[in-house]
Amino acid sequence: MTGENPITVEDVEAARERLAEVIHRTPMDRSTTFAGMSGARSVGLKLENAQRTGSFKIRGAYNCMAQLSAEQLDRGVITASAGNHAQGVALAGDLLGIETTIVVPEITPAAKIAATRGYGAEVVVEGDIYERSYEHALELAEREGWAFVHPFDDERVIAGQGTIGLELREQYPELDTVLVAIGGGGLISGIATALTAADPSIRVLGVQPEGAAHAGRSLSEGAIYERESVDTVADGIADTRLLETTFETMRGRVDGVLTVSDAEIAAAVALAAERAKTVVEPAGAAPLAALLSGAADVADEHVAAVLSGGNVDLTDHADLVRQGLIELGRYATPRLAVDDRSRIEAIANRVAEGGAELAAVETDRRTPGDDPNRRSLVLGIEGNGPEHVGGVLAGLDGIEGVSVLDAELCDDPIFG
Amino acid sequence: MTGENPITVEDVEAARERLAEVIHRTPMDRSTTFAGMSGARSVGLKLENAQRTGSFKIRGAYNCMAQLSAEQLDRGVITASAGNHAQGVALAGDLLGIETTIVVPEITPAAKIAATRGYGAEVVVEGDIYERSYEHALELAEREGWAFVHPFDDERVIAGQGTIGLELREQYPELDTVLVAIGGGGLISGIATALTAADPSIRVLGVQPEGAAHAGRSLSEGAIYERESVDTVADGIADTRLLETTFETMRGRVDGVLTVSDAEIAAAVALAAERAKTVVEPAGAAPLAALLSGAADVADEHVAAVLSGGNVDLTDHADLVRQGLIELGRYATPRLAVDDRSRIEAIANRVAEGGAELAAVETDRRTPGDDPNRRSLVLGIEGNGPEHVGGVLAGLDGIEGVSVLDAELCDDPIFG
Repeated sequence: MTGENPITVEDVEAARERLAEVIHRTPMDRSTTFAGMSGARSVGLKLENAQRTGSFKIRGAYNCMAQLSAEQLDRGVITASAGNHAQGVALAGDLLGIETTIVVPEITPAAKIAATRGYGAEVVVEGDIYERSYEHALELAEREGWAFVHPFDDERVIAGQGTIGLELREQYPELDTVLVAIGGGGLISGIATALTAADPSIRVLGVQPEGAAHAGRSLSEGAIYERESVDTVADGIADTRLLETTFETMRGRVDGVLTVSDAEIAAAVALAAERAKTVVEPAGAAPLAALLSGAADVADEHVAAVLSGGNVDLTDHADLVRQGLIELGRYATPRLAVDDRSRIEAIANRVAEGGAELAAVETDRRTPGDDPNRRSLVLGIEGNGPEHVGGVLAGLDGIEGVSVLDAELCDDPIFG
Repeated sequence: MTGENPITVEDVEAARERLAEVIHRTPMDRSTTFAGMSGARSVGLKLENAQRTGSFKIRGAYNCMAQLSAEQLDRGVITASAGNHAQGVALAGDLLGIETTIVVPEITPAAKIAATRGYGAEVVVEGDIYERSYEHALELAEREGWAFVHPFDDERVIAGQGTIGLELREQYPELDTVLVAIGGGGLISGIATALTAADPSIRVLGVQPEGAAHAGRSLSEGAIYERESVDTVADGIADTRLLETTFETMRGRVDGVLTVSDAEIAAAVALAAERAKTVVEPAGAAPLAALLSGAADVADEHVAAVLSGGNVDLTDHADLVRQGLIELGRYATPRLAVDDRSRIEAIANRVAEGGAELAAVETDRRTPGDDPNRRSLVLGIEGNGPEHVGGVLAGLDGIEGVSVLDAELCDDPIFG
């Protein structure tokens, strides 16, 4: 039994009119590399990380807020969010000239608070977890008469996100399948509404991290499934459930939900930077991870992946990229025992001869059982792939006075 | 006295026809953030780092090679390059179905060789510096009857790069000023040819690193100036001089040449990643550095910066971003003396209270003159800017048993 589908493509088209002068029509970047890696006929990356505020959220927030009554606009709006929705609401408020208040949990990084305040929003820090911030925001909304702008359980928000679907059709008319990340489901609800109305044969596939997967079960069981907890690097889509509006909109419009591991997400973040030259946050990399992992069968299809956001601290991004390279078998941190530290010269020489890069040398990291008559070295070695790096490691083991204790090379490389 | 200008806009338009089915029409990303920072009325980033092979070089290489005679195509082509031109020639050869040989210097990273071979090129490693590789390539060209594809001293190559100028006009019709990096001058020669033909009032400004600046002097003196050596992080534009074709093309078409420091380039690489979510190599960041440094007076203008390439090793990119954050006053590595390492708790607490992030803690890095009765700590502290980070550092100095020896905070932040 399918419930009512509250949102129509006309709602999305109306949203597009409201957003026309406000948002960027983000690029669709064609990727020959990712087409080759995935077996797809062509791949397009919808770069919503290049959207204003660094994510798609401004689309929904603005479309919602622009429809408030004059009285509500005069009073102001409130929401709870530690992430992209906060900046979307803050910028929308700035553009509409209304007061916005954002409740954020205590653990919110200072940089995100500063970014949100930078758009003129009032930021209230309240709650050890998001649910407390959310409750506090509802209380403030009630007390102050502010309109609460929900991050996804709202038809106007969903219609705003759906404008991405209209752009996808224009920028990529041959589109067969689109991959979209799901947290609470607002983004995919909007995109599926726009695309299935235009052409029901287009496949709309959701993507969730293994540690925050719930939507596939909800759709197959026909009832909202709620997980107890979440554990994923993709904080932008770390939700426990769909809500009524997204669930009802997705039914019959979303063709399936795939899951990806956090390791696959890290590898996708690294490859997005290296091959597509684009910075994506973990949630934004999830559809690319699904494409490259083979979770989606896209042989000979024209496939789009929506890279939904790029708001990631640069230090965290570098850390993720490093983990991604390790999961791809391109970076290893072997531990060596050497009879003398002067062996570093021969080691550096052998790594260079092997065409790899010696990216780090650390001495004296000992563990239980190490031979007191040997010195300890931990290296960072960067190469082209597991075979290359493995070959270089084997070469190090052959140097006189050097033995590799612990190769730390990825045995089962991601996307391999 | 102006010499002959060998290349015309008709050459560029013909190049565009040849390239139509081969290259990407790269996005023009509008940046409200960079407009605000620079005082420009609007800013557009021409994302040539999203071009096939990760840089603009495919445009010129293909346009050149597609015009070779059937006999030359049959024999094959050769070039010398450790960088983006190598990949451009290799991909062009693959697309045209001809054999390509690339001579690279011995220091070329294995990853770049692998990428070039990945396009089907034969790679010959020869020469301790680029000049030797270049000479070797000319010898091989002579001996084997191969056509030599020069990276910039070639009218067909320049006309190919000029297609970016045609796209700029279409994507950004209100354009007042464009900023373009100069190494040997091929890119700016092409762009200036296209833009000045369309509208002579458009300002075309070149950008060079301080450690590889030569073009400004050549243009002002009316004769090619050659520097003795180069020293810059921007390896893609580390040339010592213009050559005849670029010099003659640039005269009367390029309105000026600005210089930027390597520190400004690092800060621009970091801001491109953070704000525009795009990965640029140092050479590709130079025009953005010129925009943000104030080197160009662009008040109330519509300004485009050509981000010419994104081929940078991810580990090197992370390292550059870190240096960029330091130059922006957003990351500091203070050294502290503490009476006991248990003070780490109070330090971590104070950093968090200050809304900054404690990104690293390193113990035991001692220097001459340190008090043997104190323990040494080196921290990594990330904040929103020099005032924020400075305030947090001052707060650490007030903790009992803790003194900040060496703040290592940037005194004169870039773009501040």
